[in-house]
Amino acid sequence: MLTNSIIDEVNRREAALRVIKSILQTKGRKGFYDLTGLAGGFPILSEDKALLETYAGPAVFDDAIQTVGKIHLGGDKVLALNRTSSGILASVLAIVKPGDEVAHYLPKSPAHPSIPRSAELVGASYIEFDKIEEFKVEDNTSLVFITGSTMDHEIITQEDFRRVIEICKAKNIPVAVDDASGARLRTIVYRQPRAIDMGADIAITSTDKLMDGPRGGLMSGKGEIMQLVKSKAHQFGLEAQAPLVAAMVRALENLSPEKILMAFSAKHELKEALNNQFSMVKETPTGIMLTPEAIEFELRQIETETDLESDDLAYLFAMILLRDHGIITIPAVGMPGASAAIRIDLAANDAERIGSKEIAEAFKKTFTK
Amino acid sequence: MLTNSIIDEVNRREAALRVIKSILQTKGRKGFYDLTGLAGGFPILSEDKALLETYAGPAVFDDAIQTVGKIHLGGDKVLALNRTSSGILASVLAIVKPGDEVAHYLPKSPAHPSIPRSAELVGASYIEFDKIEEFKVEDNTSLVFITGSTMDHEIITQEDFRRVIEICKAKNIPVAVDDASGARLRTIVYRQPRAIDMGADIAITSTDKLMDGPRGGLMSGKGEIMQLVKSKAHQFGLEAQAPLVAAMVRALENLSPEKILMAFSAKHELKEALNNQFSMVKETPTGIMLTPEAIEFELRQIETETDLESDDLAYLFAMILLRDHGIITIPAVGMPGASAAIRIDLAANDAERIGSKEIAEAFKKTFTK
Repeated sequence: MLTNSIIDEVNRREAALRVIKSILQTKGRKGFYDLTGLAGGFPILSEDKALLETYAGPAVFDDAIQTVGKIHLGGDKVLALNRTSSGILASVLAIVKPGDEVAHYLPKSPAHPSIPRSAELVGASYIEFDKIEEFKVEDNTSLVFITGSTMDHEIITQEDFRRVIEICKAKNIPVAVDDASGARLRTIVYRQPRAIDMGADIAITSTDKLMDGPRGGLMSGKGEIMQLVKSKAHQFGLEAQAPLVAAMVRALENLSPEKILMAFSAKHELKEALNNQFSMVKETPTGIMLTPEAIEFELRQIETETDLESDDLAYLFAMILLRDHGIITIPAVGMPGASAAIRIDLAANDAERIGSKEIAEAFKKTFTK
Repeated sequence: MLTNSIIDEVNRREAALRVIKSILQTKGRKGFYDLTGLAGGFPILSEDKALLETYAGPAVFDDAIQTVGKIHLGGDKVLALNRTSSGILASVLAIVKPGDEVAHYLPKSPAHPSIPRSAELVGASYIEFDKIEEFKVEDNTSLVFITGSTMDHEIITQEDFRRVIEICKAKNIPVAVDDASGARLRTIVYRQPRAIDMGADIAITSTDKLMDGPRGGLMSGKGEIMQLVKSKAHQFGLEAQAPLVAAMVRALENLSPEKILMAFSAKHELKEALNNQFSMVKETPTGIMLTPEAIEFELRQIETETDLESDDLAYLFAMILLRDHGIITIPAVGMPGASAAIRIDLAANDAERIGSKEIAEAFKKTFTK
């Protein structure tokens, strides 16, 4: 496999960033289309900038994030984190002890690596379930994670969500919801309640996913548990710094359900444009997806020989899409452990600047490269 | 003790931030004086703001931070981190295994808590030394930290620094230098070489200490080891996000040794103004300091009865200094584990707005409160 270690993945990401930089220098910002749905943004106001000092900034923005954060997620106490992965780590550090078990229910395996990794770090065992009838907790289960929406945007059903909560409540086990994209997808597109309103103790979301905030994590939950998580976060440097908090506040103020709902309807057109060439394109809530297996299958259809494994084919596809067409997808630029699926998110800002036909054309050319 | 747990320390910090916010609302930014030397700043340019998106920002600023970071710290490869504590954790995660020993040499105990905590987290033992003749490594020592300048600005001597490096090199043990304030204090005030130039494998500094950058950590070092640290940082969400990296780049471009050197000479005047009232004021490289023990001693001198322990007296002193005089010091706003010493840093931006006499007067009134 090309990507046989985490360090290779770091190198791959750096290669992609070099391509983006060279596009920026030759064609400017309009030279690429960030269709990851993770483009984020940094919408601070000019008056915010002056306040962004270490001790004055937090005083103002810590209060503001409490207000807008509770509107978005519910809960008693909000904590802004450097990333969603940092928040996962902080909650595991706060709640889980060596020898405990961390259980995880998600609509479809595999999990985002931050959850098993954090469990491993504190010396806890880790088990994950994607079939609700198999989900169970043990006597030493001290924390249960629910993933609201996976990296590939598979969504948990409300029934499964409530069932996991019920099982945990019966044994007094705290439930943390990784609602990275789910806090928007589940509620806006699928009209589910917020995680905390369904009984979760804490919920965390990524402020750059399906909203124009900075890369970062926003957590809310019950007062007592949040105080423990906050303390661990500050001890290990996991909390978001003032500039990120300020941008999260502004992004939450600007949050637009309309754009997400428009992408939800626009995806059919893109799927049709692609279906002329590719039979295995899947719909996601706000776009389309080609899995590594689908890419391998399509290549076999056009009788292209390759020794590469499917994940490496997906990385290669993503790199050509970026280099030749300026289209940024997650396999090219994602962090270690990110999904290798080629996902086009029409809720991304840049989706307004590129049509379904152009995207389909770029996919076609990339395949025959 | 008032502050008998980390959660109390979090509450104390929040109380101080509420006071700062109320000063901001009634008197504006000029209503307080941040003399912590940690005020930091967020000096991004207006053209930077547009680039601050998740994937475009890193492409530009990751390259720029390599250039300016290497000028400041030396080394082959630079990594920007969310905080210096995040960088300490990332290096321990990358290098240390359960059962290993982490040794730490610093000019004066106690250590910043991030080092022993990170060792404990991975299941390593931890030992610290502040007498060079006692420093030693064991067969299972896998990482040695040197603190260049303590939280209270005690500075390591160049001889002791080189001796620790020598002992470690003989046994092939990597050395990481926590040069949070030291990367400026040691080099600019005491004319010592950069940590990496004296043989350290990695060095990390705080971009808000004695420079006008954001709260954050800047690390540099040997290529291979830095790649491992970077990979761990990305896995657990410890790296600095693009807005912080951009502000670090600009702050390093603006770095002014002159301001630090001016504070170095101005401190004598402040010490004299305070010495009329307090006999136990100590000089630091860029200001003065009253330790908790000194505060207790001074209270006894004026025959004030108290049941409080010395650290709590220092917290109380810092809170009154903030509430009545708008002077921010670390015990009021510091993170859990920060030093309880009342330190006035004349290299802080706000020091230009307040004279030695005013500070001395505020100290006097706070004591007789």
